[in-house]
Amino acid sequence: MKKLYLKDIQPFLDKNFVLVGNENFYFTNIQAAENVNKETLDWVNPIKNNKLHYILNSPAPVILCEKNIQDTIPVQTNKCLIFVENPKMTFLRIANKLFLKSSFDGINKLAVIHCEAEIATNIHIGPNTYVGKCKIGAGSVIHGNCYLYDNVTVGENVVIHANTVIGADGFGYQRNEDGSFEKFPHIGGVIIEDDVEIGANTCIDRGALGNTIIKKGAKIDNLVHIAHNVVIGRNTAVIANTMIGGSVTVGENTWIAPSASIRDQVKIGNNVTIGMSSLVTKSIPDDEVWIGSPAKKLR
Amino acid sequence: MKKLYLKDIQPFLDKNFVLVGNENFYFTNIQAAENVNKETLDWVNPIKNNKLHYILNSPAPVILCEKNIQDTIPVQTNKCLIFVENPKMTFLRIANKLFLKSSFDGINKLAVIHCEAEIATNIHIGPNTYVGKCKIGAGSVIHGNCYLYDNVTVGENVVIHANTVIGADGFGYQRNEDGSFEKFPHIGGVIIEDDVEIGANTCIDRGALGNTIIKKGAKIDNLVHIAHNVVIGRNTAVIANTMIGGSVTVGENTWIAPSASIRDQVKIGNNVTIGMSSLVTKSIPDDEVWIGSPAKKLR
Amino acid sequence: MKKLYLKDIQPFLDKNFVLVGNENFYFTNIQAAENVNKETLDWVNPIKNNKLHYILNSPAPVILCEKNIQDTIPVQTNKCLIFVENPKMTFLRIANKLFLKSSFDGINKLAVIHCEAEIATNIHIGPNTYVGKCKIGAGSVIHGNCYLYDNVTVGENVVIHANTVIGADGFGYQRNEDGSFEKFPHIGGVIIEDDVEIGANTCIDRGALGNTIIKKGAKIDNLVHIAHNVVIGRNTAVIANTMIGGSVTVGENTWIAPSASIRDQVKIGNNVTIGMSSLVTKSIPDDEVWIGSPAKKLR
Repeated sequence: MKKLYLKDIQPFLDKNFVLVGNENFYFTNIQAAENVNKETLDWVNPIKNNKLHYILNSPAPVILCEKNIQDTIPVQTNKCLIFVENPKMTFLRIANKLFLKSSFDGINKLAVIHCEAEIATNIHIGPNTYVGKCKIGAGSVIHGNCYLYDNVTVGENVVIHANTVIGADGFGYQRNEDGSFEKFPHIGGVIIEDDVEIGANTCIDRGALGNTIIKKGAKIDNLVHIAHNVVIGRNTAVIANTMIGGSVTVGENTWIAPSASIRDQVKIGNNVTIGMSSLVTKSIPDDEVWIGSPAKKLR
Repeated sequence: MKKLYLKDIQPFLDKNFVLVGNENFYFTNIQAAENVNKETLDWVNPIKNNKLHYILNSPAPVILCEKNIQDTIPVQTNKCLIFVENPKMTFLRIANKLFLKSSFDGINKLAVIHCEAEIATNIHIGPNTYVGKCKIGAGSVIHGNCYLYDNVTVGENVVIHANTVIGADGFGYQRNEDGSFEKFPHIGGVIIEDDVEIGANTCIDRGALGNTIIKKGAKIDNLVHIAHNVVIGRNTAVIANTMIGGSVTVGENTWIAPSASIRDQVKIGNNVTIGMSSLVTKSIPDDEVWIGSPAKKLR
Repeated sequence: MKKLYLKDIQPFLDKNFVLVGNENFYFTNIQAAENVNKETLDWVNPIKNNKLHYILNSPAPVILCEKNIQDTIPVQTNKCLIFVENPKMTFLRIANKLFLKSSFDGINKLAVIHCEAEIATNIHIGPNTYVGKCKIGAGSVIHGNCYLYDNVTVGENVVIHANTVIGADGFGYQRNEDGSFEKFPHIGGVIIEDDVEIGANTCIDRGALGNTIIKKGAKIDNLVHIAHNVVIGRNTAVIANTMIGGSVTVGENTWIAPSASIRDQVKIGNNVTIGMSSLVTKSIPDDEVWIGSPAKKLR
């Protein structure tokens, strides 16, 4: 493993970071808390209770700590403590850049690509994934066993996890005179903008006539259902097992907790928080927190 | 695009439809409301608020309208307005017949079919779908990445969307003396009758000893769990993320809204409506509406 | 079909079983109640209402009954009634041993296995399943269309049903100064211990830095989400459509009913029962029953 010194991680630190201890220490790995060793870059999670105790007991030579506890920590000459505003963010940036290798190894030979699909270079498409008449942007990763129907547009730097289905027909039927269902035509598409990540075994249906749209930077978890003609706003998170009904629109920077269920046609604003297992039957204005079943505004 | 005139769509209109305006106009396409153009067949959704305004502003030459607003719409000489009972149903029939092409292109060369499976002609089975020792009826479409275990019978004109699993073992265990689970044998099958449609990433388990049955014309959405030995009645709809427990029976023409959860052994009648996110712990007679968690009869 | 006599099933009976009737009768098959015939091994489900009526009307020659009804059943000379403590358990053991054939037919030629994966002999891996840099123990069955990312360890005698995804990245993001999400690195693994069974279309995410662990004998149903760093205890059941948030720990012999949702970081004890559709937001001590949304201790 390569030895990494202060100079290697300085680009990821706050400009006014504070270093206490021996600045010549190095690390070679990152680890779960229980496996931290004498060559680990460690960090102190701000939600931990006894941070001094954690630091004293960590075998790691280099530890990222939050700035506002600096005064409470005695100098450790056998460690290099680095104080920053947000040690979790600093840690994740270092880990992503220095420890994760990208996987743009092209189209797996067992992926199935429609002859009219337009695929950028510098992508990864996993085994047994099917890509219909779609566009896939540069830097995107589609893991294996996914199924993209025709008319799905995937932007740049998108990640789609395994076994996810994008562009299946929406659930739109009319009962006829006999009581049996006739199906509304679903000929729209799905647009996934840049920097979106989508979990495993998730379903995003095509629009009926228009499009279903997932905007830039939105993050969708596993086992989520997003129905036809939904719009999910920028930097919004939709967590596991959530169900979003047809033609729902969700604004920006909104957080939809796991197992929520949102009625069709509802409009959710920006910066909204929806609680776990909430049933949302009404539209929600910007900046509100709603919880419960049916969901109500948190006082 | 082919030009379509009144004579082409007349088979889909009510016998006593009323045409106001120029009957020689034609259309060549169908579109989402925001993309309607000078060659579109448009329609006025009965749930829209200002229908006259919509009609006046639509660039479409031919528009399907509901009969009961006919008196409120001034004659438009630059349009062909066609008044029918149910413009949405009329539109969907025209769209399905004249704009959707069927996709019965046979068994994809990357599908895997058990040597004893019986597959009708005039079907489509997508790439990477596995079909065990099953029967598949004429006119059925099974999209890619599905997995059908042995002993699944699929009727005619069935559609199964991508990544759906049919015939996995049900969840049936007995705790033994040690507290560990022993598994009840699951050797039953699944019967999917004609005209059923099943969404993506859905699971329909096999019966333990008997069968799990989805009756004619039922529609199942994405991410639905249907446990062992369930019976879903004719023309019943089960919407996304719903969980139906073991040996539940559901009658005809029933509507189970998204994210519902139905306890095992429960019996649901005909023409029942179950609300979103409802938890159904008791049997429900015909013709009732139940909502809530636990669900209660709506007064 | 082979004729099976008392001597063939005696190894599966209680030591002090009681046989009433003709001990020379045989059976050749097992069936759903509605299909029982003159050569079936039948059993009386203890939850049935009129057990005498069931026995008198069963055409089966050999019937397993619960010991505590023995005195209420008149002798049937045309049948062989076998009284045991737990006829369902006895039946399932006989059925599993004498009527189910194992399917250890190796790695399907359409499965895709990473060149550094370590796969035991005596396993089954189905078509279109992908196995990354993983270990798979002896006697395990992974059905088709599954996707196992790198760093998944599967023990012995594990069953994983079709289209399940193990080891996808967890949902861990930090909002940065711009409001956009940056991703926490997910480089941990998943450990599935011996005798675990996992349903179809289920997702078990890898740990962020440590591991997600499913302990020996746990049973996970279809469409379940298990987030990063979760620990599920021995012989615990997690039923369909349940959502278990990040870093949750669940003890032994616990039962989590369908459609439950458990908040991240929560600790659930041993021998706990969580009701259907419950929303668990707090930790639960051993031996308690919690239901509702939010869940509360059942008095």
